[in-house]
Amino acid sequence: MCYSLIIGEIKGTWPVHISGGKLIKVGIIGASGYTGAELLRLLKAHKKVEVTYVTSETYQGQKISKLYPNLRGHFDLKLSPLEVTEAKKRAELLFIALPHGESQRVVRQLFNESRVPSPELRIIDLSGDFRLKSADIYEKWYKIHHEHPELLGKAVYGLPELNREKIREARFVTNPGCYPTGAILALAPLLKKTAVFEKSIIVDSKSGVSGAGRVPGFQTHFCQVDESVKAYGVGTHKHTPEMEQELTALRGEDVMITFTPHLVPMNRGILSTCYASLKEELEEEITGIYEDFYDDHPFVKVLGEDELPETKYVLGTNYCHLSARLDERSGRVIVISAIDNLGKGASGQAIQNMNLILGFPEDEGLKAPGVFP
Amino acid sequence: MCYSLIIGEIKGTWPVHISGGKLIKVGIIGASGYTGAELLRLLKAHKKVEVTYVTSETYQGQKISKLYPNLRGHFDLKLSPLEVTEAKKRAELLFIALPHGESQRVVRQLFNESRVPSPELRIIDLSGDFRLKSADIYEKWYKIHHEHPELLGKAVYGLPELNREKIREARFVTNPGCYPTGAILALAPLLKKTAVFEKSIIVDSKSGVSGAGRVPGFQTHFCQVDESVKAYGVGTHKHTPEMEQELTALRGEDVMITFTPHLVPMNRGILSTCYASLKEELEEEITGIYEDFYDDHPFVKVLGEDELPETKYVLGTNYCHLSARLDERSGRVIVISAIDNLGKGASGQAIQNMNLILGFPEDEGLKAPGVFP
Amino acid sequence: MCYSLIIGEIKGTWPVHISGGKLIKVGIIGASGYTGAELLRLLKAHKKVEVTYVTSETYQGQKISKLYPNLRGHFDLKLSPLEVTEAKKRAELLFIALPHGESQRVVRQLFNESRVPSPELRIIDLSGDFRLKSADIYEKWYKIHHEHPELLGKAVYGLPELNREKIREARFVTNPGCYPTGAILALAPLLKKTAVFEKSIIVDSKSGVSGAGRVPGFQTHFCQVDESVKAYGVGTHKHTPEMEQELTALRGEDVMITFTPHLVPMNRGILSTCYASLKEELEEEITGIYEDFYDDHPFVKVLGEDELPETKYVLGTNYCHLSARLDERSGRVIVISAIDNLGKGASGQAIQNMNLILGFPEDEGLKAPGVFP
Amino acid sequence: MCYSLIIGEIKGTWPVHISGGKLIKVGIIGASGYTGAELLRLLKAHKKVEVTYVTSETYQGQKISKLYPNLRGHFDLKLSPLEVTEAKKRAELLFIALPHGESQRVVRQLFNESRVPSPELRIIDLSGDFRLKSADIYEKWYKIHHEHPELLGKAVYGLPELNREKIREARFVTNPGCYPTGAILALAPLLKKTAVFEKSIIVDSKSGVSGAGRVPGFQTHFCQVDESVKAYGVGTHKHTPEMEQELTALRGEDVMITFTPHLVPMNRGILSTCYASLKEELEEEITGIYEDFYDDHPFVKVLGEDELPETKYVLGTNYCHLSARLDERSGRVIVISAIDNLGKGASGQAIQNMNLILGFPEDEGLKAPGVFP
Repeated sequence: MCYSLIIGEIKGTWPVHISGGKLIKVGIIGASGYTGAELLRLLKAHKKVEVTYVTSETYQGQKISKLYPNLRGHFDLKLSPLEVTEAKKRAELLFIALPHGESQRVVRQLFNESRVPSPELRIIDLSGDFRLKSADIYEKWYKIHHEHPELLGKAVYGLPELNREKIREARFVTNPGCYPTGAILALAPLLKKTAVFEKSIIVDSKSGVSGAGRVPGFQTHFCQVDESVKAYGVGTHKHTPEMEQELTALRGEDVMITFTPHLVPMNRGILSTCYASLKEELEEEITGIYEDFYDDHPFVKVLGEDELPETKYVLGTNYCHLSARLDERSGRVIVISAIDNLGKGASGQAIQNMNLILGFPEDEGLKAPGVFP
Repeated sequence: MCYSLIIGEIKGTWPVHISGGKLIKVGIIGASGYTGAELLRLLKAHKKVEVTYVTSETYQGQKISKLYPNLRGHFDLKLSPLEVTEAKKRAELLFIALPHGESQRVVRQLFNESRVPSPELRIIDLSGDFRLKSADIYEKWYKIHHEHPELLGKAVYGLPELNREKIREARFVTNPGCYPTGAILALAPLLKKTAVFEKSIIVDSKSGVSGAGRVPGFQTHFCQVDESVKAYGVGTHKHTPEMEQELTALRGEDVMITFTPHLVPMNRGILSTCYASLKEELEEEITGIYEDFYDDHPFVKVLGEDELPETKYVLGTNYCHLSARLDERSGRVIVISAIDNLGKGASGQAIQNMNLILGFPEDEGLKAPGVFP
Repeated sequence: MCYSLIIGEIKGTWPVHISGGKLIKVGIIGASGYTGAELLRLLKAHKKVEVTYVTSETYQGQKISKLYPNLRGHFDLKLSPLEVTEAKKRAELLFIALPHGESQRVVRQLFNESRVPSPELRIIDLSGDFRLKSADIYEKWYKIHHEHPELLGKAVYGLPELNREKIREARFVTNPGCYPTGAILALAPLLKKTAVFEKSIIVDSKSGVSGAGRVPGFQTHFCQVDESVKAYGVGTHKHTPEMEQELTALRGEDVMITFTPHLVPMNRGILSTCYASLKEELEEEITGIYEDFYDDHPFVKVLGEDELPETKYVLGTNYCHLSARLDERSGRVIVISAIDNLGKGASGQAIQNMNLILGFPEDEGLKAPGVFP
Repeated sequence: MCYSLIIGEIKGTWPVHISGGKLIKVGIIGASGYTGAELLRLLKAHKKVEVTYVTSETYQGQKISKLYPNLRGHFDLKLSPLEVTEAKKRAELLFIALPHGESQRVVRQLFNESRVPSPELRIIDLSGDFRLKSADIYEKWYKIHHEHPELLGKAVYGLPELNREKIREARFVTNPGCYPTGAILALAPLLKKTAVFEKSIIVDSKSGVSGAGRVPGFQTHFCQVDESVKAYGVGTHKHTPEMEQELTALRGEDVMITFTPHLVPMNRGILSTCYASLKEELEEEITGIYEDFYDDHPFVKVLGEDELPETKYVLGTNYCHLSARLDERSGRVIVISAIDNLGKGASGQAIQNMNLILGFPEDEGLKAPGVFP
């Protein structure tokens, strides 16, 4: 399957009516979850779009500000059950914030049963359903069947730091996973610019609890999480092949990653500590390599030699703070990235993608500094 | 001393040059603390001012974004040691975010050794030095001598929900304390509109740790605070007379308050649970009384009968969420307010006051919803 | 109904076989919840009993150490579904750690359908089902019907600091609620020894999340609780009449309490800040009154004038730390108590009661200091 | 320098008077810090020793229970300034809980200026001063000069799972670091029993804040730590050579470790996620290798295939919970260990060592299950 051709099928010129001064109408399918609520919070500050349609099956008929009282006074919207025809009528761009498995079906319906989306609609899918290009790999790691493999590969992988130009022309963007965002941003310069062993890579990530979503369970009970750290999904987490797919594409060689996610007693944030072994000595300073790579990317900040990232400083934002260190004794590079899993790891990045698609300034709606302390 | 006359002395028409399209220059004296950093975070979103001057003795010469990496990419300012002449030259409005005791001297200097401030400068003092109108009461509760009692009473108490019009005309505003803000907003409608016993009032407040400031000590050591709740300053907290002074002024009768602050393991937020006994049965629904009182006040949200405030929902904002309940068995009213101690309890309110003083929309720079979760 | 007569019916001399060197067999009905697990944790250190029977319907067949890995290596017990006959055969004393509503039925069955328990069995019920002596009050506050009102009043209220001698002779003890334990210990000396107004009492309590139990829900989701404080059950919490009943009995006059519970982001601990107005000036120091009252009570520690309780210092223990302060301005006494809601507030106190019933040293199994930090 | 000879010099038969029924007298030099307080907490449950001497320069004259109110009612001891002669007179075994750098001098003095300790005294040093056998390596990683290199190598490395018999005969034990304890326990079976590449090892650890000690600073301010994760000491942490030294000794080949510690918002606990690459396929199940290795070691629990360690479950204990997993794709083994940094990572292990030295049951005083939740 030819990746560039597929992308070709769904790119296009943005309709004339959007370039005017009017606000663009956007909708959120599955607005009752944390990524939906974070989209709303961030879109409040966006000057060029208005949210016109928010859906939830479970909470239909309720005001979103009842579910999320932080939105009180900001949104008067009521949650509707999803109707595909209505969705298309009410919004020019849809964020899909459904769980994986559910998103497949909805995207298929929105695409009118044809192999390509309708020309009028833009879709940014925050689920994992369209990130992997292979249905087999999807089924192996997600442990569910993919019902619409014909759509795999049609979505542009929405990591602007790697795919900015493709995203600008896309109608269908698959928003990266939270862990892959932190890991790929940490590893991309290394894999693009240096001679590391492609199979030496370890990603050890520490995440806040909101990554587990809003629906309660033992794993997110306060008393189970508080005052504790644990690993989970050791060797089996479904974000692993996503990291490998994108870094392999970037590197041009098969990249293999050992990925261990951990749960940490905090609401938001992912710190990814990434390890890779060098094939030969570096010719430049490692920090310089990162500064060069991210020079033009407004949301990635390479920290100085005397600093290290802390998730707290990017809380509520679309930023990624990162530091790279050379461990001379072992010939390993250690790169540490901090993101907000709901920000650059989900909703913030989705809005960054929307800005690229709609031709807005890339940071529109994403300018607020992190909330500290 | 006649309060209204004093106010008269320092009110005035805002100079013409401010009404133009130019950005107003503002400075922050004592910018290295949490309230200083929060002012900067919030001012980033403000469209009508620019921060031109930030001071710190301890961190002079350092970039503010080094001290607060959440501000990286947002402010390139360096901290200077305070020089009064320079401060006046560089800014048209100054926020003073110094500890109590230190603020007195600085305000005195900024006021040119005369009894009234210079006509060109506006001052919003976030310390406790000018909130109380009596030097004796200040010394009794703050346990230090007031060096400039001649300035007491010259500042307008900057709680817009009670003093909006006075603030609009003020050149010198004393920003309310964090606990008094939550307590006064909770109690004002009751004391203004109902027959409660003036000496029956109890305020039981629960605060996050940032209220204790940035300088480390045993009381703010993570291991001392985490997984614990405690009361402190029982019967002796210096915010007590501030609550009494303002509520007495509102009520027209001596109000006496028993105030107990508590420390809770969280960064931000104050929940104040306030109790008062009714002299006679209420004639209207208690929630209705609150809705009427706060109808025109954009930052106070009276919650519905089936809701209660949680500090989390106002995190990072200038909002106050509150609920009032009548306990029929005891004839007591229980009012609960939630604010962010650095938001409506300090820097957010300071910006609201600035907006009033400078004739901007009251919510300019303060429109972001709370960060949840 | 005559309280002392009822107690008379169920008291008795402890069977001879118990006084020997053998370990007494105890069981836990409903061992899968937090109070059940805490009983096991504490009983591990107890030298005179062995746990022989643990039940759970939901987790039947599972090892308790699978559910609570902190018990791994300490208990090899499997959870069984409850069978009343088996329970009586396997244990000489049963802790009932079921939710209210469920406990009623089980206690009735254990009592052999007669109005009094069998002479061989001792029961300590940790639910709220037998704390109130009036079925009407139970139904009003618990919002469910009491199926076995004939058993109300037969249980001794298991607060050793008030009822030690009655507990020693009891066969059926109702273990106090977590909030009432903290509040009654804080208020008992005041109501017994001083002239406070009986209707002036306010109890403002702050609890950790384990008080809400192990079953997940939105209210205990980490992201809902963390970084937040809220009040709940304002004026309606079911522990209110329990406080009133016991303090009224102690005082000999009707005591009325306004009680507001709050949820705080920590696992364990309750801090209760209690307020009461004096009818006349105290003749002694308030701390002295408390020291005298609790002189002989090993688990209540009255702190010095320069200290205030913190829940952290009693974490994991059966202790209550408390401070009393006179607020001379208002004529109010403020008493603050700290307990562990699973310790003195539930399982620790249940073991203290067991020790009294079985004639063991009162602190057997309860000697460990709190875990700090 | 011959390790076994040195050990020979200081081993010996335990004096007769100790074998009687009397309590052994122990002292704690530097009792005001967290490890000192944790020693006291745990020794409360120990039936064969009594604490007779506790020192602190800063808090001399104060009761230890004033500094640590969780010890109220358990210890009536006052802190004294250290006097070496007094220490020897008052205690038969001394725990040294001083910071590194300070411990050197004190141990030298206790050893009577001779090269070997006096026959009457046993010393367990919890600092890092005597863990490394090379003064050069000490100075390189600790960044301070070692004043008494003649004592290096005289102490037995007090990890009972590797050195039990040597510890039994030792008079001078150097208690392992918190991170090395977790990492060595996780890696020892692998390095002893399998063909892993000695330079492929990565240890990624996540620690609670109490590891940073009791003295306040910006790094332990609640607002700096709460809701955040960060790495620190990347490639430079002083526990690295300790891990390498002990694992090299065990393996018989040079082991090199990349170690990255992280700070997590919790009081206690270290989770170490360790990675190593296999030279060849394993012939047995990885979990079986670990179960065999730790079969006789009471404090290490190898979890089942369906479990993973969480620090919460070992809170307050001397246990290490661990899981090993084979990642077949990469040929890596991932081993995860959980300890309490103040338990098995410091004071618990020190007591385990004392038990071995004094011939007590190894788990005396260490039998309590973890505190959950």
